[in-house]
Amino acid sequence: MTTIRDVAKLANVSVATVSRVINDNGYVNENTKQKVKDVVRKLNYRPNDVARSLFKGKSKMIALFVPDIKNPFFPELARAVEDISNKHGYTFILCNTDNDPNKEMAYLHALLQKSIDGIILVSNTMSTNQIKDMNVPVIALDRKISSEIISVTVNNKEGARQAVQYLRKQGCKRIAHISGPENVSSAKGRLEGYLEEVKNEKWFASDFICTGNYTVDKAFQSTKELLQRDAEIDGIFVANDLMGVGVLKAVESLNIKVPDELSIIGFDGIELGEITTPSLTTMAQPIYHIGKRAAELLIQRIGQPGNAIKSEEHKVKLIVRESTIERGGNNE
Amino acid sequence: MTTIRDVAKLANVSVATVSRVINDNGYVNENTKQKVKDVVRKLNYRPNDVARSLFKGKSKMIALFVPDIKNPFFPELARAVEDISNKHGYTFILCNTDNDPNKEMAYLHALLQKSIDGIILVSNTMSTNQIKDMNVPVIALDRKISSEIISVTVNNKEGARQAVQYLRKQGCKRIAHISGPENVSSAKGRLEGYLEEVKNEKWFASDFICTGNYTVDKAFQSTKELLQRDAEIDGIFVANDLMGVGVLKAVESLNIKVPDELSIIGFDGIELGEITTPSLTTMAQPIYHIGKRAAELLIQRIGQPGNAIKSEEHKVKLIVRESTIERGGNNE
Repeated sequence: MTTIRDVAKLANVSVATVSRVINDNGYVNENTKQKVKDVVRKLNYRPNDVARSLFKGKSKMIALFVPDIKNPFFPELARAVEDISNKHGYTFILCNTDNDPNKEMAYLHALLQKSIDGIILVSNTMSTNQIKDMNVPVIALDRKISSEIISVTVNNKEGARQAVQYLRKQGCKRIAHISGPENVSSAKGRLEGYLEEVKNEKWFASDFICTGNYTVDKAFQSTKELLQRDAEIDGIFVANDLMGVGVLKAVESLNIKVPDELSIIGFDGIELGEITTPSLTTMAQPIYHIGKRAAELLIQRIGQPGNAIKSEEHKVKLIVRESTIERGGNNE
Repeated sequence: MTTIRDVAKLANVSVATVSRVINDNGYVNENTKQKVKDVVRKLNYRPNDVARSLFKGKSKMIALFVPDIKNPFFPELARAVEDISNKHGYTFILCNTDNDPNKEMAYLHALLQKSIDGIILVSNTMSTNQIKDMNVPVIALDRKISSEIISVTVNNKEGARQAVQYLRKQGCKRIAHISGPENVSSAKGRLEGYLEEVKNEKWFASDFICTGNYTVDKAFQSTKELLQRDAEIDGIFVANDLMGVGVLKAVESLNIKVPDELSIIGFDGIELGEITTPSLTTMAQPIYHIGKRAAELLIQRIGQPGNAIKSEEHKVKLIVRESTIERGGNNE
């Protein structure tokens, strides 16, 4: 392996000069600079980041923890974090935790040993104290952890209210909710928003809420049971688009026509929602933007640990596609 | 930060003894061992992997390069590589290259500087020489690079032949192909298999092959043009399931009934194919298994660089779903 000494020797300069050229700090005259660069290229010398990180306690790595790499929402989010990381010279590590606290801790332990510079967490299992103990910059993304941990999220509750208001505006008179896991903050916010809109309706009963657990299969099963129990449901607000796929499948298996007999609206705005049949109306998150902001805040915190940064809540936006239709009647 | 010296001091033993306990090598009596372990726990001491990797030139990290994290095939593949990596105590890094040689080289450079232990590559842009120059164990996955680079792939050509044979058996008489990028080995193999089956048919013309470039949008557009040009096509073999989604959308937009008027078969066997309407018949790869094998081979190579390992080609398997139907006539 080529060392900095080999480069210095062949270029006939000191190790300090090579270091100055490589790190682009301190004065070196142009001729010498060029000579060093030529030798670096010739010997294919790579300044050793491992040695550097030992010295500085920095690895130039940041990690994103996601609970389910197979929900397309997370690859879309990861793309944004990755782009910003690369742009700032960080290597980006993606860790898939399966919502499993043991796996999460194992990853954390491994990364802390590698002097990871910072972590973006999509987690509902880590506690504030666990995060503080890590003694490394952390940003919570998509799911809030506590007011003490800076987060980038969307207005889940308000977005859910808008989804239900939209269905009502289209003429839906009995609106059900396929909810996410009750211990996940995004799912909780969406459920609360739904409840605020419907809880005083005389048709509303608690069995209008069925858990889909943020998975296609559970959403499929719950929707089937729901619609077999109550055939008059004419609108469903689904807590995420991934479950929307299961809902569409269930509805199709019961020969119910979407959107003529039943309107469906999801949440997230993943690309998958464009390619279902019918395509899925949704409350779209600015997915790329929130991933980008989380990465920017993390990198800011890594660079200037003292500076104050603030949590951000971004807005969702209605995207109308084929799964909803104006059905006359109640239009305001 | 706690150092090995702090541990030694509090346990009242030498640094060498602490090191022996932590690394579980050399004799230490049981009482001392227990005392050291208690102190390690008490001080929350983490042996520094950065220091270790500097010493050993190992980082206990492996990386997977994928060309498109948003094609669900790759998250499914990544899961397998990740599981096996974790099982063997490696930190798993996912790098998304967008098929961009510059991005690929930038990632490589960063990871080599971090003493990455090995890399699994899904790439069609890296050359054999570039890989050899890296001087780090590499396994090619999904896409062959050359006979000199060990690979784990599937029988793309034979699988494509089986797909076309199956469509013919269902009674299809004019079978088109939506192909992948021509510089990608998997796409090339699938195209060759298709051609071997149809090239002597009198209905066959070169415009029965339309590129979909492994993307939904391009496949959508190409299929629309294809079917508007030739309304008698009754079967389409699509080079991957992701494009299958675009094909289904195009067919639907033309009011052609699947499978009654047109049968469609994909390739890959990703979960997305189960949730389209209609669900997609496909030649399924053993996705998890090939990811697992690539990781196992890489870890084997890292552990015993001298040992011979061999390339593997796994078999695809027909999964019949709703997008194909027996249409009488030509059944053998």
